[in-house]
Amino acid sequence: MNDRDVKEMLQAVRDGAITPEDALLRLKTAPFTDLGFAKVDLHRKLRQGAAEVVYGAGKTPEQIIAILRELRANGQENVLVTRLDAESAEAVCREVGLTYHPDARIAVMGNAPAPDGLGKIVVATGGTSDIPVAEEAALTAEFLGNEVVRLYDVGVAGLHRLLSHTREIMSASVVIAVAGMEGALASVVGGLADCPVIAVPTSVGYGASFGGISALLAMLNSCAGGVTVVNIDNGFGAGFAASRINHMEAKR
Amino acid sequence: MNDRDVKEMLQAVRDGAITPEDALLRLKTAPFTDLGFAKVDLHRKLRQGAAEVVYGAGKTPEQIIAILRELRANGQENVLVTRLDAESAEAVCREVGLTYHPDARIAVMGNAPAPDGLGKIVVATGGTSDIPVAEEAALTAEFLGNEVVRLYDVGVAGLHRLLSHTREIMSASVVIAVAGMEGALASVVGGLADCPVIAVPTSVGYGASFGGISALLAMLNSCAGGVTVVNIDNGFGAGFAASRINHMEAKR
Amino acid sequence: MNDRDVKEMLQAVRDGAITPEDALLRLKTAPFTDLGFAKVDLHRKLRQGAAEVVYGAGKTPEQIIAILRELRANGQENVLVTRLDAESAEAVCREVGLTYHPDARIAVMGNAPAPDGLGKIVVATGGTSDIPVAEEAALTAEFLGNEVVRLYDVGVAGLHRLLSHTREIMSASVVIAVAGMEGALASVVGGLADCPVIAVPTSVGYGASFGGISALLAMLNSCAGGVTVVNIDNGFGAGFAASRINHMEAKR
Amino acid sequence: MNDRDVKEMLQAVRDGAITPEDALLRLKTAPFTDLGFAKVDLHRKLRQGAAEVVYGAGKTPEQIIAILRELRANGQENVLVTRLDAESAEAVCREVGLTYHPDARIAVMGNAPAPDGLGKIVVATGGTSDIPVAEEAALTAEFLGNEVVRLYDVGVAGLHRLLSHTREIMSASVVIAVAGMEGALASVVGGLADCPVIAVPTSVGYGASFGGISALLAMLNSCAGGVTVVNIDNGFGAGFAASRINHMEAKR
Amino acid sequence: MNDRDVKEMLQAVRDGAITPEDALLRLKTAPFTDLGFAKVDLHRKLRQGAAEVVYGAGKTPEQIIAILRELRANGQENVLVTRLDAESAEAVCREVGLTYHPDARIAVMGNAPAPDGLGKIVVATGGTSDIPVAEEAALTAEFLGNEVVRLYDVGVAGLHRLLSHTREIMSASVVIAVAGMEGALASVVGGLADCPVIAVPTSVGYGASFGGISALLAMLNSCAGGVTVVNIDNGFGAGFAASRINHMEAKR
Amino acid sequence: MNDRDVKEMLQAVRDGAITPEDALLRLKTAPFTDLGFAKVDLHRKLRQGAAEVVYGAGKTPEQIIAILRELRANGQENVLVTRLDAESAEAVCREVGLTYHPDARIAVMGNAPAPDGLGKIVVATGGTSDIPVAEEAALTAEFLGNEVVRLYDVGVAGLHRLLSHTREIMSASVVIAVAGMEGALASVVGGLADCPVIAVPTSVGYGASFGGISALLAMLNSCAGGVTVVNIDNGFGAGFAASRINHMEAKR
Amino acid sequence: MNDRDVKEMLQAVRDGAITPEDALLRLKTAPFTDLGFAKVDLHRKLRQGAAEVVYGAGKTPEQIIAILRELRANGQENVLVTRLDAESAEAVCREVGLTYHPDARIAVMGNAPAPDGLGKIVVATGGTSDIPVAEEAALTAEFLGNEVVRLYDVGVAGLHRLLSHTREIMSASVVIAVAGMEGALASVVGGLADCPVIAVPTSVGYGASFGGISALLAMLNSCAGGVTVVNIDNGFGAGFAASRINHMEAKR
Amino acid sequence: MNDRDVKEMLQAVRDGAITPEDALLRLKTAPFTDLGFAKVDLHRKLRQGAAEVVYGAGKTPEQIIAILRELRANGQENVLVTRLDAESAEAVCREVGLTYHPDARIAVMGNAPAPDGLGKIVVATGGTSDIPVAEEAALTAEFLGNEVVRLYDVGVAGLHRLLSHTREIMSASVVIAVAGMEGALASVVGGLADCPVIAVPTSVGYGASFGGISALLAMLNSCAGGVTVVNIDNGFGAGFAASRINHMEAKR
Repeated sequence: MNDRDVKEMLQAVRDGAITPEDALLRLKTAPFTDLGFAKVDLHRKLRQGAAEVVYGAGKTPEQIIAILRELRANGQENVLVTRLDAESAEAVCREVGLTYHPDARIAVMGNAPAPDGLGKIVVATGGTSDIPVAEEAALTAEFLGNEVVRLYDVGVAGLHRLLSHTREIMSASVVIAVAGMEGALASVVGGLADCPVIAVPTSVGYGASFGGISALLAMLNSCAGGVTVVNIDNGFGAGFAASRINHMEAKR
Repeated sequence: MNDRDVKEMLQAVRDGAITPEDALLRLKTAPFTDLGFAKVDLHRKLRQGAAEVVYGAGKTPEQIIAILRELRANGQENVLVTRLDAESAEAVCREVGLTYHPDARIAVMGNAPAPDGLGKIVVATGGTSDIPVAEEAALTAEFLGNEVVRLYDVGVAGLHRLLSHTREIMSASVVIAVAGMEGALASVVGGLADCPVIAVPTSVGYGASFGGISALLAMLNSCAGGVTVVNIDNGFGAGFAASRINHMEAKR
Repeated sequence: MNDRDVKEMLQAVRDGAITPEDALLRLKTAPFTDLGFAKVDLHRKLRQGAAEVVYGAGKTPEQIIAILRELRANGQENVLVTRLDAESAEAVCREVGLTYHPDARIAVMGNAPAPDGLGKIVVATGGTSDIPVAEEAALTAEFLGNEVVRLYDVGVAGLHRLLSHTREIMSASVVIAVAGMEGALASVVGGLADCPVIAVPTSVGYGASFGGISALLAMLNSCAGGVTVVNIDNGFGAGFAASRINHMEAKR
Repeated sequence: MNDRDVKEMLQAVRDGAITPEDALLRLKTAPFTDLGFAKVDLHRKLRQGAAEVVYGAGKTPEQIIAILRELRANGQENVLVTRLDAESAEAVCREVGLTYHPDARIAVMGNAPAPDGLGKIVVATGGTSDIPVAEEAALTAEFLGNEVVRLYDVGVAGLHRLLSHTREIMSASVVIAVAGMEGALASVVGGLADCPVIAVPTSVGYGASFGGISALLAMLNSCAGGVTVVNIDNGFGAGFAASRINHMEAKR
Repeated sequence: MNDRDVKEMLQAVRDGAITPEDALLRLKTAPFTDLGFAKVDLHRKLRQGAAEVVYGAGKTPEQIIAILRELRANGQENVLVTRLDAESAEAVCREVGLTYHPDARIAVMGNAPAPDGLGKIVVATGGTSDIPVAEEAALTAEFLGNEVVRLYDVGVAGLHRLLSHTREIMSASVVIAVAGMEGALASVVGGLADCPVIAVPTSVGYGASFGGISALLAMLNSCAGGVTVVNIDNGFGAGFAASRINHMEAKR
Repeated sequence: MNDRDVKEMLQAVRDGAITPEDALLRLKTAPFTDLGFAKVDLHRKLRQGAAEVVYGAGKTPEQIIAILRELRANGQENVLVTRLDAESAEAVCREVGLTYHPDARIAVMGNAPAPDGLGKIVVATGGTSDIPVAEEAALTAEFLGNEVVRLYDVGVAGLHRLLSHTREIMSASVVIAVAGMEGALASVVGGLADCPVIAVPTSVGYGASFGGISALLAMLNSCAGGVTVVNIDNGFGAGFAASRINHMEAKR
Repeated sequence: MNDRDVKEMLQAVRDGAITPEDALLRLKTAPFTDLGFAKVDLHRKLRQGAAEVVYGAGKTPEQIIAILRELRANGQENVLVTRLDAESAEAVCREVGLTYHPDARIAVMGNAPAPDGLGKIVVATGGTSDIPVAEEAALTAEFLGNEVVRLYDVGVAGLHRLLSHTREIMSASVVIAVAGMEGALASVVGGLADCPVIAVPTSVGYGASFGGISALLAMLNSCAGGVTVVNIDNGFGAGFAASRINHMEAKR
Repeated sequence: MNDRDVKEMLQAVRDGAITPEDALLRLKTAPFTDLGFAKVDLHRKLRQGAAEVVYGAGKTPEQIIAILRELRANGQENVLVTRLDAESAEAVCREVGLTYHPDARIAVMGNAPAPDGLGKIVVATGGTSDIPVAEEAALTAEFLGNEVVRLYDVGVAGLHRLLSHTREIMSASVVIAVAGMEGALASVVGGLADCPVIAVPTSVGYGASFGGISALLAMLNSCAGGVTVVNIDNGFGAGFAASRINHMEAKR
């Protein structure tokens, strides 16, 4: 509910069309349905410009099924379920029609829209082990209406592999740089690209990689301009933020 | 040098217009001038779409003066010097014309261009102590051609202060959320806004704020969509990235 | 044994009613029974004003059964067993009558008393994944004689969900704010409420949430007044402390 | 503004007493005055039941003076300024009438009210070096209308010193346990007292005390019931929370 | 080989009793037998005054059996095997005669000698969960010729339980204080005892106990005199060091 | 492709032997084959002077088989696969001829060449538990053409064991010191040897060894000259770097 | 007050020699004098077998002078003041007769007694920078009646320097090993000595020594038997504990 | 003393040329002179193949002067003093002839020898702020007989600057990569070079660079082969190790 809605409702109050009590109630309870264990946010699409996303980790299959049904009952046909392990996915898919991507642990209800962004989103990874996180980012971005170019295994230790893709990087609208270990990919890509770069540290590595902390710190300290960072392994967050950037419009 | 430049040069080689040796040299040495202690990057504006920025920390006033002169000698009139303490600023200003902002520790050579972005960049802070970092972000964004709206001291502990500015946040093109202590501002703003949000943790706080680590971790873990994070106190990085986003264009 | 008890006993010594040797013994051995592996504290109810609580983690079912029997043999009918996994619970329940709550991993011997606190304790969570910890807090509080209001899944990323419950929060006697990830719930609730707020960080999250450290640090750094913090996932501790606060009496 | 206020205002709208536009404005702008660098919150006393507190760190004397004058101009006579170093205090006192406590780095405008809490708040410290933090807690509590009992230098390494004060601890309404180094005071006090205990880790110590982290961790892990924790050196927070607890009333 | 041994051998060289080559060989190869994967140290008893101890973790049953046989073949009848899990213990016991203590994960070959120390070693624990580590310490000490008094579950949250054992603590030769969570036991015992206290942090606890780090830090920061610390869960190290102290002799 | 290759190609362009377009293509695509999920680097042997190494962790057996076949199809007969668990190894070996070393989790395709280094590489370990990491280093070094001397279980707590091998250490070309726990081996070896020493911390240990961090920090802080460090458990990296050093040649 | 004292007093109560009220008072208030800011513990010498020690850090010269006078007034002639900086020392010495050791920041009132321990305490350091901490340990031990042997700058990187002192180490009663950086001295000394070894990490070093953490961790992980650890830079604690060990007596 | 020396001496003992007592003494006391506060190691040049190096930090000018004189008196003409601040340097230079390099905080006694290594050592830095550490490395290497090529300010954010120096890197004997912030330089250089690469993290940066930890972790996690790491800011260690590698000889 934005200012205009409130004002209209206040005028209805003045006109006697609705009582003050009703207005108070409306102010408070409108935007979501309460399932007891979760508030399903039916107005978020309107408010944040995104289809609904359900964070699957820590929810039982039964809870996820209930949420999906509630959403569909309210006309929300396109839903992305993230962090859904294979076992839960199977249970959910038996009840609700979903397409499941086991690598990225993502399930999609409905269809990805035709791409309508400003340009292409490049998703690059340092190694093959980073691919699951990259796929989470790529599928999220596609689900939100973006064309995605995948550049996998272009880590800086073999610099020529990355340099051979300079053109894709230079012409991208947004680059998502996914890397574990020393996380240098973000800096090098940030030095090559002239668009926003979103860095995703991954928990790939061993020893002093500390489950992604090394890559995270390296990316936060990148001396290349235009690089911002999301949480370790947070492919979804990167894809979501990249989509917002790729759908920027003039606001004047 | 992009692919097209290389191809043209290669054709000149074929035509005998330039020798292979010259071509090799050109491939390598063109883009910067070597001052011995620093490579001044004269082509970066072209390559990254930004006016030149000089990172002032760890450089002597003499080094900064030399760099500024070299840049000006190559036609670069607009330069931003960041992390410049008051004492160094005075020394530099005596030799080169600069406007110095002591709060943000930023000096500007030349003029900020007229704003030409997609919309406004909102810079919000949790408290008054976060203002220096916020000013670094705001001045950077203005220098790079953006209109900036400042919302200072709107931390979540007095939620109504923030909510009274919902309209500005809802209509922003990009929001930069600057906060120390528990860093909750990023999450709350991220829940309100439907545009990209760049979170800047600050080293404001005491005890277990650990020089900004608490705020950094909170921001990385934000469950609000579209939030990305830069390094602690990195107002410049946030302003730079926000400007890139605010200048997005269709690339097709 | 408080000062008065000691003084009475000393008078009995003077009167020859008890020997000095007996008095010494009484001073030392009265308050607990020794089972070899655990000191069962039979006087704690008196001393700390609480029914007995047994910390189940790290104890075998046999040890727990022995403790419960000892307590019952001494007239302690109401006992709470925390951190009891499902398997151990089953073994214990076969021998001793208990009600087991698998979510919260809590077993109750006896009955929760009628609520006799100053007001209601609100238990709020940021997401659905925080519910097990919240239930540990809620069941503990109910067992100790408090009325509990549950507000689950009201995290700050969807601020309106929380704001729609402003009345409950404003009228609470104590609020327990349970949240993982960025832990911002405590700050926002702390800004809304005018009663004591106990923040419980949970280990929910991934990447740089570091098993609850991010939420813990955020809560410790909360700039909202009246917020205190307990250990990660320590629902019991929060419920216990909230109950003490909700049973405050004038001491003059 | 609570529900009742909104409802009254909505009825005034219905009655035509105020226009919808005015109502909207009132909803948003009422609670604070904007000084540019800080939002002075004039309604907080109403909303949170506390006199105003100004966090002095990171504010210039000029800013503090302006805030104090604005508050006084709005009828707020009693203000506490925390984290105010001696130099700033002198500058502020020249302009505004204040009582300054250098140990606790606290300045008070107005008078502490007569104690009206449920009982006494005991402030205990492990050593003499913890006294400044303890004084911050004690003065805050007194300013908010509490009677305070100081038990300083009663650390657990000389257990009899603490035990000789068992009566004060047993009869307290709230205990604030302030300790650095190994922070064991909170656990021992928590085992003795039957009231809420607020633990304040201090940065006193050296080596592996890590500026208070050791004490903080120890206090969070206290196995004594009813103990909650605030940030390192956060005497103010402890005093504020203790005062809220000591002013609990029946809410039914 | 100490100085005297070397000097004797050098005199034998001078006397022609042994050749220089043999002397060189003796200097180098005497003290251990090489099994390829482990150097079995046959002279350590002499050199360090202890029966042999085999660290079982990370060794296969076959390796342990080979080491035990080699030791026995060289006349070493009394051997302690630490960190031996139940499965390996079973495999080893089938081949070599051993007494296995599953709690402490210790196996003993041979017999513990009659106690011949200066006094008793008290092993105290904060809770029942600390018992396995305490048993590792106690069995080690007994194996090395010490009388051990066990005081289990005497944590500081129920201070009277500990105080009722003041006599044992006051009359101990060495106290080993074993505790997890906040580790306060070491400080309180250190304040009561007038003998050396060895603190053993355990990994018991949850949340911010961080696998024993909290207890470790608390113990290192103990303000009680005479307290030293060993590694987390290192019951063996504590028992070994306590035994050395309990066997001190005049060296003049 | 080095400078000379580029220059030759540029001359071929001038001579009309190849077109500029082809030259551009060659510059970019030559050095690797794209398998979709991994860039197989066929020129690395030339470029870095090493046979190919495949990092097995995080790759499926199918991916590893495909990479090995591609490499063999391009004439690369000698390949080392690291971090390959037993189960995957079995699957891969069924399809491709490999020798598997389960301790070191290394598989070798082809044969180790005859040693052609400057001297011997000594691999020393502190204990028997460090052997798997040491074997990873030793097998890597042998595969790359080095003679290896193994000195296992020579930790500093039994200093004479190490000192009895002084000759091997003094005459080594490179020493790899592998140790967990306190990592002191590197310092002591570094004090004895006059050749480069590469320290490998291992995750062996418990409690405050923190998975190798203690050993890592100790090795980084070694006050012995000539010691450099690789990541925790990174036997491969140590063997690879040692081989490079052992194959140094005059470059003048 | 031990059991016997209590029993005697109880008998006096029975005999009517003292009233119960007096007995209660005596139980509580006997052992210390209250200066307001510090409890001066006049009975500690009796209770803990040590002369009084005053921890100087965080106390003003005035407070220290008052404590020293109170102690002297109660017959305590020998007092050690630790962590006393030069400036405070000067102020204190003007009022009270003290001998000040600037290196160790220790001041002594009275005289060190003639050594009466079991043997010698060896204090060894890794480098010259560790000497101040070592002197704190050595002076403390001497003040408490021990003969001390100083072995400075015998770090493991020059192993022969340490080995040339094997005799002193072998014949010590207790060894205090003081080292920063990688802290390996403790392990090597622990392997040589057959007496208790107390390790003191120092904050000497740079980079990843992290103010002594590296040395602390290394020492905690020492695989040599009989090594225990005190806090970083805690020379006093090491000297105090070593003295207790060196004064062990039979307790049977 | 190596095996041969011992054997010769033993034969001299047999021949009666020296007494056993003398032999024992010689074994122990030969290699250094004792100044009381420091053991000056006069044989290290022989033993480790390096001229003497004095670590200046934590030593007084007087101590350094005494050490230098002792060394010179024993014929050691070439000495390097590291970590010597300007003030101490001035004091030392007044007494002993030294050349001081203020950037690198290094003083040299004597002359650097003519380069006699296998090739050139390249010292590269990411930025201008890393130069002091790089100079420490470069001057150390030159002092030890190496030719050094300096490539400063070639960080990866401007990748073309680094690539324009590919030839120098490809032809180096050893590369020392010095970088702060995200430390990516080591990985990129490691991918380009086919020689040993020594990475030096620097404490340059701010926020989450944590005084060099970010760079350190990134370098340890480098996925490029042949990279080893030294401590933060340890330019000396890198130069020393590089020199050893550059002076490798066949040992067969």
